Amino acid sequence: MKKTALIMGSDSDLPVVEKAVGVLKKLGMPYEAHVMSAHRTPERAADFAKNARDNGFGVVIAFAGKAAHLAGVLAAGTSLPVIGVPIKGSDLGGLDALLSTVQMPSGIPVATVAIDGGANAAWLAARILAADDDALYARLLEEKAKMAASVAEKDAKLDL
Amino acid sequence: MKKTALIMGSDSDLPVVEKAVGVLKKLGMPYEAHVMSAHRTPERAADFAKNARDNGFGVVIAFAGKAAHLAGVLAAGTSLPVIGVPIKGSDLGGLDALLSTVQMPSGIPVATVAIDGGANAAWLAARILAADDDALYARLLEEKAKMAASVAEKDAKLDL
Amino acid sequence: MKKTALIMGSDSDLPVVEKAVGVLKKLGMPYEAHVMSAHRTPERAADFAKNARDNGFGVVIAFAGKAAHLAGVLAAGTSLPVIGVPIKGSDLGGLDALLSTVQMPSGIPVATVAIDGGANAAWLAARILAADDDALYARLLEEKAKMAASVAEKDAKLDL
Amino acid sequence: MKKTALIMGSDSDLPVVEKAVGVLKKLGMPYEAHVMSAHRTPERAADFAKNARDNGFGVVIAFAGKAAHLAGVLAAGTSLPVIGVPIKGSDLGGLDALLSTVQMPSGIPVATVAIDGGANAAWLAARILAADDDALYARLLEEKAKMAASVAEKDAKLDL
Amino acid sequence: MKKTALIMGSDSDLPVVEKAVGVLKKLGMPYEAHVMSAHRTPERAADFAKNARDNGFGVVIAFAGKAAHLAGVLAAGTSLPVIGVPIKGSDLGGLDALLSTVQMPSGIPVATVAIDGGANAAWLAARILAADDDALYARLLEEKAKMAASVAEKDAKLDL
Amino acid sequence: MKKTALIMGSDSDLPVVEKAVGVLKKLGMPYEAHVMSAHRTPERAADFAKNARDNGFGVVIAFAGKAAHLAGVLAAGTSLPVIGVPIKGSDLGGLDALLSTVQMPSGIPVATVAIDGGANAAWLAARILAADDDALYARLLEEKAKMAASVAEKDAKLDL
Amino acid sequence: MKKTALIMGSDSDLPVVEKAVGVLKKLGMPYEAHVMSAHRTPERAADFAKNARDNGFGVVIAFAGKAAHLAGVLAAGTSLPVIGVPIKGSDLGGLDALLSTVQMPSGIPVATVAIDGGANAAWLAARILAADDDALYARLLEEKAKMAASVAEKDAKLDL
Amino acid sequence: MKKTALIMGSDSDLPVVEKAVGVLKKLGMPYEAHVMSAHRTPERAADFAKNARDNGFGVVIAFAGKAAHLAGVLAAGTSLPVIGVPIKGSDLGGLDALLSTVQMPSGIPVATVAIDGGANAAWLAARILAADDDALYARLLEEKAKMAASVAEKDAKLDL
Repeated sequence: MKKTALIMGSDSDLPVVEKAVGVLKKLGMPYEAHVMSAHRTPERAADFAKNARDNGFGVVIAFAGKAAHLAGVLAAGTSLPVIGVPIKGSDLGGLDALLSTVQMPSGIPVATVAIDGGANAAWLAARILAADDDALYARLLEEKAKMAASVAEKDAKLDL
Repeated sequence: MKKTALIMGSDSDLPVVEKAVGVLKKLGMPYEAHVMSAHRTPERAADFAKNARDNGFGVVIAFAGKAAHLAGVLAAGTSLPVIGVPIKGSDLGGLDALLSTVQMPSGIPVATVAIDGGANAAWLAARILAADDDALYARLLEEKAKMAASVAEKDAKLDL
Repeated sequence: MKKTALIMGSDSDLPVVEKAVGVLKKLGMPYEAHVMSAHRTPERAADFAKNARDNGFGVVIAFAGKAAHLAGVLAAGTSLPVIGVPIKGSDLGGLDALLSTVQMPSGIPVATVAIDGGANAAWLAARILAADDDALYARLLEEKAKMAASVAEKDAKLDL
Repeated sequence: MKKTALIMGSDSDLPVVEKAVGVLKKLGMPYEAHVMSAHRTPERAADFAKNARDNGFGVVIAFAGKAAHLAGVLAAGTSLPVIGVPIKGSDLGGLDALLSTVQMPSGIPVATVAIDGGANAAWLAARILAADDDALYARLLEEKAKMAASVAEKDAKLDL
Repeated sequence: MKKTALIMGSDSDLPVVEKAVGVLKKLGMPYEAHVMSAHRTPERAADFAKNARDNGFGVVIAFAGKAAHLAGVLAAGTSLPVIGVPIKGSDLGGLDALLSTVQMPSGIPVATVAIDGGANAAWLAARILAADDDALYARLLEEKAKMAASVAEKDAKLDL
Repeated sequence: MKKTALIMGSDSDLPVVEKAVGVLKKLGMPYEAHVMSAHRTPERAADFAKNARDNGFGVVIAFAGKAAHLAGVLAAGTSLPVIGVPIKGSDLGGLDALLSTVQMPSGIPVATVAIDGGANAAWLAARILAADDDALYARLLEEKAKMAASVAEKDAKLDL
Repeated sequence: MKKTALIMGSDSDLPVVEKAVGVLKKLGMPYEAHVMSAHRTPERAADFAKNARDNGFGVVIAFAGKAAHLAGVLAAGTSLPVIGVPIKGSDLGGLDALLSTVQMPSGIPVATVAIDGGANAAWLAARILAADDDALYARLLEEKAKMAASVAEKDAKLDL
Repeated sequence: MKKTALIMGSDSDLPVVEKAVGVLKKLGMPYEAHVMSAHRTPERAADFAKNARDNGFGVVIAFAGKAAHLAGVLAAGTSLPVIGVPIKGSDLGGLDALLSTVQMPSGIPVATVAIDGGANAAWLAARILAADDDALYARLLEEKAKMAASVAEKDAKLDL
């Protein structure tokens, strides 16, 4: 299976990155994580993007807050699917990061998930990589069934 | 190549859907378009989602405005990657559709693109389907080079 | 009296659901509470909605946060009045849930109350069920008088 | 069948009110329309609300823009269900009217529908009055089926 | 000197009301405080407004949160100047109360101050009542000079 | 009667200023209008404010858009009541001007009215100047009665 | 005098760029304009930034809309002052571009001006380059005096 | 080297000012800090601005929250570059201060940085003053290299 790249703009984004890692581990998906900044190390980010497909990556996930340019910079550098996770900062509740991530110009899309949505970024990566991987697709159906079962169990236990 | 599904909540979304169709045609990607509503024809939407993979689809794109639930409903019904295009309505500039599409709960991701971002939805679908398709990936690189050339040409012609 | 259904998308919504339960108990109104998810258990939600009237429900209250689709999904499945309670999440102050709940397309209305407005959802259910129930209507007038008296009492005690 | 009251804060709200009237007529529901202002004729509004149930009304729909207090004032004066329709003004896209209508304090709920959602206010009134009216409920199911058929028809005609 | 009325929608607004009281006391301005609700005790609020001028009030200050209708209801009932203080709630940072207070229709103005701006409401009341009161105007100039001196003192002490 | 000052930041604000002039003329209130800019002619603005009371003004109304500082600058220079009218610009619907006008720091209040609320600024000026002017207060009550009659007339003519 | 660079993300930004050019011409400041895209021609943008100081530029102005990354990308590549002009798009009134431009992480500042504020970007460039240029500073004072005179003239002509 | 002025509207802004001081110290840039208020000490602010260039300042940084007029008032009084730092208040997350600072009218620009962006204001001041100062420019490049190295180091240590 191709690797998923987890690129965070700052190590303060780690708690959200770890939610993605948790899902990838559960699904047995290989990944590689890096700290890279669209603004502080733009060349490293550009290099990483350029070579990502050749280096065995199938999907890139970018985590960034505020004027969150990281996902866009990576999407400019590769033609792999790039998933953007807007990180909530201390002031505007993540609206700045959401708009900076999702409102991309035509031709350079970023697949944006919810604010602080680390887990969903990984679920989305899995859906993408499962396109041609029946085993992974089966794992996804299995997990979906577990989620449904967990909701049903909570319903059964509800005592109001 | 697997087909891309274009599902619109209302035929008033057609101008944005056509931007996606334009990109898919340019890239030679097969697609199928439908009008289906999360709220008016929920069962059709659920059925479509359930059988989408078996019916040869690789990606689903959903177009919806206001309380835009369509992408989420489709993502609940399939484990294919689902791309959501928030449609701008007449009042809140599309903020309602954007938040309704992107803020999905953990486990059911929607790959959200810009408000009225029909073209980018198609570009994202191409990136996803190109993961294992070297010819399509080459086409994407070619188009990227054309975009860059077009910017350079506009720069050369600039007369200020 | 017909039952009021309390459907929450996640058991993390319980504190707001309990505010509704408190009002229903005070008014002596029968209710039934469930955990069901528009996205994780869409079929259970659809089934519940479809059969709600036959199962003795008169009103359905849905509690959900973020891209809050639950009320809309239930309103699509039944023609009973559906009340939506947007739940405040950790980032956008509940604006996402409010817009996802209230901005429904024509034909499928959701009666939306305030963010985290569990109590008001129950008061609204009571107003709806009191339409043909003079005893319940009298109870509502009584409670309104108590509220007014409580304000007057606070006014009398005010010492500034 | 009980009457539905349509109360608008200003006659500039008429285009949205007419959307409600269209639905009520289609469903054969009796109604009465008035211009009343929470701020310019507060006593008339209060009187109307107080006597609405005795005067044969089952539901009250209020239409107002900007600092939209009309629905709240009516909800304070009656214990019938009050539906609020926020009207879009010329500046903030209706966000002001939406928040002024929906964020009601505990005990005095307003069933809020979408910005400029006149049609949905009427559909909601019908759901409320159909609670004990099997014929009206049957009409609602019929209309729902028509909406679904209309979506299916648009889908069949789609030529992309 | 005419009295200033301090009307709060709920006793949970007391911390903001006390900021107003502090300013009024410092300026030696008579005042009277009440708890009254636009929605729970609309008649008391209307009565108070109607008789406020005859009862010796020169200005009315209203404190309310969420769908803050109190200032508007009082302004509808009296032709005295009414000052509105939007109270921050737990979700939208007070934007709901601000818009509900300030966006009044033509003819019924509310003089709106900052979110949680209890002190400024009192300073504004003083400016209004000082229009024909040279002693109070002199007190205002004096206080302004003190504020300026306090800023200058902080500047002098600054050690960076 | 004391004069009302109408100070606009730019002559592009004239349409909103004229709404205020219309009300002042109807009420027979003397006024004086000026173009002055907080940023382009700060000294003129400061001078005007400093001498406004001595020059026979009782109230100052400031009209400004975008980063609307004019009302605040005038309120800093005089202790007369200053009313701020936020002007809607071409982008953010007037939210920028509203927040720049209303969120004043403690001690320097601006009595803010609705976005583009020129008429209400004049109505508020009239309420302020009527505090000690029984004839003007009577005129206000008269106008209020006319507004109520006009609403009643529209109600009578309504044909839906 | 050093040159000012005008870099636009798309030639649709020309109307706003022309406002900047008008000011630069009036002040006799040399400039050079280019179309370059953070996402479509990232390498050209990076190259331009890297060599800007050596190529005789003193200030860089970037114009971009939506997820406006251009100013940030240029600021990452040079240590010259970079001014960002957020361009209003068709949906969110320019809020997306404003937040994407201004909310930069520590170390890589962008000097942000108003939405569509092309003229002010040029005025700011002039202030920066006038730091060590007494003639340009004198020109700025002269223009400021003209602006003040123009306001005074409009005031004199005002006829209300 | 010319001095940088740090002007705060209130000493409650100190934590953000200190972030600027930290950067200035690291770069060996001379500075002077003052508390001055656009509204409480407008004349001191105007005087400071008028004489800033003659007193050896090259850049002015203004820190203010809520209806943040300080940067605008200083920019009106000097033709030096003025940098505005919007301070987050307790309610709207700093959106009020951001819009009040950035949305300046044509001719009087404020170079706005991120909400609470004290450090970036200093980095921007350094870029401005480095325009003609090769040593300072070299220091900036050095610091940029350190930032890049620090990101690379964090990347190397990452253990996920």
